[in-house]
Amino acid sequence: MSTEPLTAERILEATEEVLRRHGPAKATVVDVARQLGVSHGSVYRHFRTKSALREAVTKRWLDRTTRELSSIADDEPKDAEASLRAWLAGLFEAKRRKAGDDPQLFATYEVLLAENSEVVEEHITELVAQIEQIVHWGVERGQFTALGPDAQVARAVFDATSRFHDPAYAPQWLKPEILVEFEAVVDLVLGGLRLLDRS
Amino acid sequence: MSTEPLTAERILEATEEVLRRHGPAKATVVDVARQLGVSHGSVYRHFRTKSALREAVTKRWLDRTTRELSSIADDEPKDAEASLRAWLAGLFEAKRRKAGDDPQLFATYEVLLAENSEVVEEHITELVAQIEQIVHWGVERGQFTALGPDAQVARAVFDATSRFHDPAYAPQWLKPEILVEFEAVVDLVLGGLRLLDRS
Repeated sequence: MSTEPLTAERILEATEEVLRRHGPAKATVVDVARQLGVSHGSVYRHFRTKSALREAVTKRWLDRTTRELSSIADDEPKDAEASLRAWLAGLFEAKRRKAGDDPQLFATYEVLLAENSEVVEEHITELVAQIEQIVHWGVERGQFTALGPDAQVARAVFDATSRFHDPAYAPQWLKPEILVEFEAVVDLVLGGLRLLDRS
Repeated sequence: MSTEPLTAERILEATEEVLRRHGPAKATVVDVARQLGVSHGSVYRHFRTKSALREAVTKRWLDRTTRELSSIADDEPKDAEASLRAWLAGLFEAKRRKAGDDPQLFATYEVLLAENSEVVEEHITELVAQIEQIVHWGVERGQFTALGPDAQVARAVFDATSRFHDPAYAPQWLKPEILVEFEAVVDLVLGGLRLLDRS
């Protein structure tokens, strides 16, 4: 069907398409091979089991968000507070987009997330590391107070904003007041970080 | 079986016991009546439908927590920060106790919560109102900064601590590091509220 070489990326693209169409319970490796016009053996040469394939497609989906946000976290910020605010808004925006633009695919990935908890844990670790980077700069520049070790503070920022990135809350992201509630939590969290005259 | 008058409270006690024993899918009003040694007609005189009974038992379960915490929220505090800290710790402790002491009953109530979202919404409103009371005192006494309207700030405090009271996170409450993570979020949130020289 195609003369392009069969790369892992092409297989993962096809897998996502098959998952969207058949749902996570029914999608098979044979469906993926058929979609690509190759034998299922060729797919297995890249991904040795069906569960390895499902794990890889889940990781790819999560990595898209991590990559989008890394540009904010990697840019050494002049204003750590503005940077963290942009990062948190970016995360919420990315998650809401995923949930809202293609609810069926989102539901599919919710099933995959539940079966690949290690991939999810790694994803969370990467996101928290990005926050940690911003917190670190903020503390170094004297813009943030050091409430504790950077990693612990970063985890607290992530946890405190769970309602705005944990897919379990996705149904609430459609509520009209959700953005006001998001801003209120971000104000609270950033207020806690801001370095003031703590005499 | 008993000469005590058949009160709503006795029916609800028996309902909880029946739910614990049979699970939420199988428990019936006839089981509740049998447990009390009365006719099911007598139960229906207090609760007109099975779903009204399930709703009432859910509300009773949630109200236990609200009542426990109200003693902290109602006591006009000298130190709003200490008071809010005690309230948040009390909420987390009450939820962890419910989840940990009787996991089967907790799982049962998770099913009931999903079925009775209005009762859950009311419960959340009551809890947020208790936080609001503490925030209000804190602002009035000049201990808390007014980040926004009290009700909105209270909701932000509730949202920021979701991971430590939303039953969806109950499996995480068993992690050894959970108390450290809780304290880190509380420090962050209280740091955001603390009134300092914001010059």
